[in-house]
Amino acid sequence: MPEDRPFRHDVPDIHGLPEDVRDRILAVQEKAGFVPNVFLLLARRPAEFRAFVAYHDALMEKREGLTAAEREMIVVAVSAAHSCQYCVVAHGAILRVRAKDPRIADLVATNYRKAGLPPRQRAMLDHAIKVATASHLLGEEDHAALQAAGFTEDEAWDIAAIAAFFSMSNRLANATDLRPNAEFHTLGRR
Amino acid sequence: MPEDRPFRHDVPDIHGLPEDVRDRILAVQEKAGFVPNVFLLLARRPAEFRAFVAYHDALMEKREGLTAAEREMIVVAVSAAHSCQYCVVAHGAILRVRAKDPRIADLVATNYRKAGLPPRQRAMLDHAIKVATASHLLGEEDHAALQAAGFTEDEAWDIAAIAAFFSMSNRLANATDLRPNAEFHTLGRR
Amino acid sequence: MPEDRPFRHDVPDIHGLPEDVRDRILAVQEKAGFVPNVFLLLARRPAEFRAFVAYHDALMEKREGLTAAEREMIVVAVSAAHSCQYCVVAHGAILRVRAKDPRIADLVATNYRKAGLPPRQRAMLDHAIKVATASHLLGEEDHAALQAAGFTEDEAWDIAAIAAFFSMSNRLANATDLRPNAEFHTLGRR
Amino acid sequence: MPEDRPFRHDVPDIHGLPEDVRDRILAVQEKAGFVPNVFLLLARRPAEFRAFVAYHDALMEKREGLTAAEREMIVVAVSAAHSCQYCVVAHGAILRVRAKDPRIADLVATNYRKAGLPPRQRAMLDHAIKVATASHLLGEEDHAALQAAGFTEDEAWDIAAIAAFFSMSNRLANATDLRPNAEFHTLGRR
Amino acid sequence: MPEDRPFRHDVPDIHGLPEDVRDRILAVQEKAGFVPNVFLLLARRPAEFRAFVAYHDALMEKREGLTAAEREMIVVAVSAAHSCQYCVVAHGAILRVRAKDPRIADLVATNYRKAGLPPRQRAMLDHAIKVATASHLLGEEDHAALQAAGFTEDEAWDIAAIAAFFSMSNRLANATDLRPNAEFHTLGRR
Amino acid sequence: MPEDRPFRHDVPDIHGLPEDVRDRILAVQEKAGFVPNVFLLLARRPAEFRAFVAYHDALMEKREGLTAAEREMIVVAVSAAHSCQYCVVAHGAILRVRAKDPRIADLVATNYRKAGLPPRQRAMLDHAIKVATASHLLGEEDHAALQAAGFTEDEAWDIAAIAAFFSMSNRLANATDLRPNAEFHTLGRR
Repeated sequence: MPEDRPFRHDVPDIHGLPEDVRDRILAVQEKAGFVPNVFLLLARRPAEFRAFVAYHDALMEKREGLTAAEREMIVVAVSAAHSCQYCVVAHGAILRVRAKDPRIADLVATNYRKAGLPPRQRAMLDHAIKVATASHLLGEEDHAALQAAGFTEDEAWDIAAIAAFFSMSNRLANATDLRPNAEFHTLGRR
Repeated sequence: MPEDRPFRHDVPDIHGLPEDVRDRILAVQEKAGFVPNVFLLLARRPAEFRAFVAYHDALMEKREGLTAAEREMIVVAVSAAHSCQYCVVAHGAILRVRAKDPRIADLVATNYRKAGLPPRQRAMLDHAIKVATASHLLGEEDHAALQAAGFTEDEAWDIAAIAAFFSMSNRLANATDLRPNAEFHTLGRR
Repeated sequence: MPEDRPFRHDVPDIHGLPEDVRDRILAVQEKAGFVPNVFLLLARRPAEFRAFVAYHDALMEKREGLTAAEREMIVVAVSAAHSCQYCVVAHGAILRVRAKDPRIADLVATNYRKAGLPPRQRAMLDHAIKVATASHLLGEEDHAALQAAGFTEDEAWDIAAIAAFFSMSNRLANATDLRPNAEFHTLGRR
Repeated sequence: MPEDRPFRHDVPDIHGLPEDVRDRILAVQEKAGFVPNVFLLLARRPAEFRAFVAYHDALMEKREGLTAAEREMIVVAVSAAHSCQYCVVAHGAILRVRAKDPRIADLVATNYRKAGLPPRQRAMLDHAIKVATASHLLGEEDHAALQAAGFTEDEAWDIAAIAAFFSMSNRLANATDLRPNAEFHTLGRR
Repeated sequence: MPEDRPFRHDVPDIHGLPEDVRDRILAVQEKAGFVPNVFLLLARRPAEFRAFVAYHDALMEKREGLTAAEREMIVVAVSAAHSCQYCVVAHGAILRVRAKDPRIADLVATNYRKAGLPPRQRAMLDHAIKVATASHLLGEEDHAALQAAGFTEDEAWDIAAIAAFFSMSNRLANATDLRPNAEFHTLGRR
Repeated sequence: MPEDRPFRHDVPDIHGLPEDVRDRILAVQEKAGFVPNVFLLLARRPAEFRAFVAYHDALMEKREGLTAAEREMIVVAVSAAHSCQYCVVAHGAILRVRAKDPRIADLVATNYRKAGLPPRQRAMLDHAIKVATASHLLGEEDHAALQAAGFTEDEAWDIAAIAAFFSMSNRLANATDLRPNAEFHTLGRR
């Protein structure tokens, strides 16, 4: 039933892209088996593509502190708060894979407060959602709550920065009518 | 990761339930292969169970006017607006089955406005969401919009009544910490 | 000044209704002296009428736990939160009668927090309003607050179920332009 | 059930008040048969009392343009939007009297959009509510709507000024726990 | 770039105004070096002008309790919450002058929670903002918080009354398209 | 009165930073006469610093389509919508300089709808604010409005991307308690 256009702009020809942009896209394709639509969308503007990918990798590929699955949980919760279809479906798939849990993405996307998460992850997502939806109200009490849940200042920065980065990403996707690739819906469901 | 309790009350013993309640539960189990948690929850109170099921069936089993898939689309969109985990996951599964579309539930749950729906279904969900989230603002212009999209007065009632019924159901699920059965996550994904 | 149509559909002929529906309506008329418009509205669809009335009675005619007046206080507070004209006026009348207090309905409808209620009833209405307006945020702290105010788990269910049922009812009334009978405005004011 | 304190400050002794304040209060008492609590509250601060009463009279006692009943309709609708118990109950009574309509206040307070009002008064209240709840969004289109409904620029000012004045008054009443006199509940109900 | 009309009505001729209104305007002009646009706007209606000015002076010229700068801080925070351009810019200027601090107005207008204020002033503004934006939720806990921050009941009244008065004033300015005089932008910046 | 800490983390020693980060900071200092606090904050994490700066420059240093002043107007309007103190004050200064208009930043920050902007810029900011605050509701009608106001698809992308980027930036600043340098308050005011 859903129409098949991946976003509201023309899809660029991969072979006409700058080499570094093309290489990154081909690398993702090789690994995932398909090209996530967000890469084709951003490739329209190579400078923005590079900055987006560099920022994303700095926050999401880091392996100290938060686990890979925790980082994806933040993305899914924040993207759901912004009703970002692409981000919930695509990162929901990645979360299932990273957490090796076929149900976690649906639970976090629909209501992370009812996802049976341990207190540490509940505190992490409470903070991420406040950053995403009411950052002007953040105060010392929020940092104290993170510390009480066992997070360092550096991890607190990661939580806030991931929530902030995807607050941007969600808006870009919503403004360009970005739709999730069909592959994401089934990935990691076993 | 999620804990395994289906809701915040004790699970009743099926064999101690009134006969009609037990029969209905066993019939669902036979058909679906498992007992959806909402049945066990409501069985704590047989009078409410019977009224809930009768109301549900009057709205959801009807086959004139809206299709079965359209009725489930309303449920999923309204339940997402209320962040009702059980209802989005359970009725998302039913929607996939009814629509024979493995992606439709994720698309409607995350943002039905971006689900590539035909204008008729977009108008249907716009109305359902207004009933669910701002019913005090409903006016003649809303009924005119439904009519322009091809809906009869009877179908308009169905849209509103389903949105209203699940506005109740979502609140009951949220108040009782109702969690979706694992089976729902994969049903209809092929 | 207000127009005299009771709702946006044709008023059914009572004598053409199924016997059980007609009997219920006549019984109400005998007791109240008039037929509340909601009965005529719902009578358009006998199956929904029966389920609605059965559900209503299971929650509102019960006499253990919450008093009849407390149940109506929940209805009035929830209906005011949804700006449901019919429900506030009709159940406001019933509340005045049940509580034998000519002012209580106006106080609860305009701001139950300023109604001078004892702490138990204030906690009851705080919970009902959270169920009605932000059920996705409900958590253990809310159940603890109810318990601290002296409510059992069964009474907590009643509070949530009444709030949920009238969240449905308010939306139905708003979607059908249901207007209160003139009689309700003066009932119980002495 | 409601407690009997009229507001959160001590009630002043009328005989110790400045003469003009006392005279005004006694005049109201003579006319109404009781002293509305708002007068006793404001009398604590004579300068504020005088300014409040002068402002009120300039807007509410004026008889060109809007009728007395229309002015009170604005007060009731705005006060309901701010959940101001005192103002809805007290001005609801005055509205019933001014409009010679025992039901109008309940209908406007619970949802003026469903009160069966003629288009002119509907436009008037739509504007008043926008002034009260989202004045930063007001633009030329709002003034055009008022003009299309037949209002002059001077009447538009009255609508906005009454909505603004009671936005202040509602906040004062809410901040001081002002409760309505019992007499207001029944006035004008016939 | 901004257009130069001070508000959406004709500017009155000062010399045609009632003597007391004209005298007040000329006194302000003498002191400030220009006539703030709000005076010209309100002068269209002398009775409202007098009541507005009297109320303003009773709250803002008082010198017991809150300091002059604190009173202006409330005005700026409340006006920012209502997106009132005139009031933020004009009273921002007065705040800079009263507080002898060239940065304070920008900090309070953009987010008073991040303005590095001492706890007393933070509590004062938290209360003012609750009065301005959610007065129906005010309760004993709010008065306790003010008392804990060192405020007397009389000072609490001042905070609430200033917040309420400018909730009115903000709406009047927004409804009349009142624009700030150019002079206000630079006043007190040194 | 405001405390003097620039953000909630330790200020890094510029001379210990990676060479490219240090060079960028020194270049800004040379041009502006001071180091904006955001550079010192982000320098804690060089990879994020580089991506942030690259993204910022791609959107803000571009000179086709939107003017430099228009880009800064978007930043100021979006940052005000998020109550981001640092971003409103810092980019307000840049806007004044770019637009050569000492009043424009205050007008846009307090209410861009009342800033007397030409229709093109009003449409630009309406879109930016919808991207920033309700991106899930964006649809074809929004793109049509931009087109009607004379914007190309590429300019529409710029508007959305700048609004999205500063939605991120605002959240980072709010989460780290970033305060504006004193210099920004007076820059460009003449």
